[in-house]
Amino acid sequence: MKYPNGIKQTATNHNINYGNRGMTLEEDLNITNKYYEDEGIAYIYKKPTPIQIVKVSYPTNKQVRITDAFFKEPSTLDYNGLYKGYYIDFDAKETNNTTSFPLGNINPHQINHIRNISNNGGLCFLIIRFNKLDITYLLLGEDFIDFIDNNTRKSIPVDYFKEKAFSIELKYNPRLDYLKIIDKIIGGRNG
Amino acid sequence: MKYPNGIKQTATNHNINYGNRGMTLEEDLNITNKYYEDEGIAYIYKKPTPIQIVKVSYPTNKQVRITDAFFKEPSTLDYNGLYKGYYIDFDAKETNNTTSFPLGNINPHQINHIRNISNNGGLCFLIIRFNKLDITYLLLGEDFIDFIDNNTRKSIPVDYFKEKAFSIELKYNPRLDYLKIIDKIIGGRNG
Repeated sequence: MKYPNGIKQTATNHNINYGNRGMTLEEDLNITNKYYEDEGIAYIYKKPTPIQIVKVSYPTNKQVRITDAFFKEPSTLDYNGLYKGYYIDFDAKETNNTTSFPLGNINPHQINHIRNISNNGGLCFLIIRFNKLDITYLLLGEDFIDFIDNNTRKSIPVDYFKEKAFSIELKYNPRLDYLKIIDKIIGGRNG
Repeated sequence: MKYPNGIKQTATNHNINYGNRGMTLEEDLNITNKYYEDEGIAYIYKKPTPIQIVKVSYPTNKQVRITDAFFKEPSTLDYNGLYKGYYIDFDAKETNNTTSFPLGNINPHQINHIRNISNNGGLCFLIIRFNKLDITYLLLGEDFIDFIDNNTRKSIPVDYFKEKAFSIELKYNPRLDYLKIIDKIIGGRNG
């Protein structure tokens, strides 16, 4: 299984280090979400990383310490929140692949979650950065599901992103203004 | 700090046992949410329990094992989802207190989260069961914040619930039909 991005953030010492893989997109999103919150534009936050607890100990009466646990396959996406009253739900992934996005990055529970969110009127999407192409796309959950339901390929080609997804500009502030794209989508739905 | 409800569910052995405290309301909600999902009524799920990782080990190249960690104070609420396109966010608490609900059950980060959700147009609430009174209330985030902002008390008296909250009927199926109350609230807002 893949270990979740950003685990470094929840670690308090140097025992956890997966290198810089996957950190930059997450950092960009954290800065962007902080900007959105500070400016009263939107409230979007990161969900906790799901962990399966195996064993705990009680060093004192009031304390519980987890002594054995492992990372679980996530069954939802990483980010969640509200924008203009709309339910927002997305995941962020980076790939070093230059021709396609490997579907192994999204597990079956998450695919089910994306279907559920889309079916219930939420705004669900993936933010995918092709590191070596220097481009970040926003792909709507509906278009992701549409690809999966109509293809047997194990990866989504870059051409599909060019056709269906929206590229997100990298700016000074907000750094990765993905809500600008959500505005277009909301506008398109309402009018 | 309080340990989260339902931690039993994430444990795979008998090392974790907080007794049956807090399990019944959570079980009722899990059954109810499953019913809502199966019937295509709503999609409401429980978020992972936030855990602070201190140390990990690598028993094999492909495996990461958490060997030291502890429960973090949650900064959001336990349940999240979508109903009729509305963003839903709530927490569930039980108390054996018969006269009031102690505010120590909700931490400052969660209070901030409730403000954020309410300010951004989400439907945020608390489901609180008074075990010994045999009654379960739904209190809207706005009314919870209103109490906190205008009182110095460390608990919310039952009378405030009688006045402001909605009691949720316990039925056969769905067991705890809180969306019936949300329907009234949505109806009130729209008309």
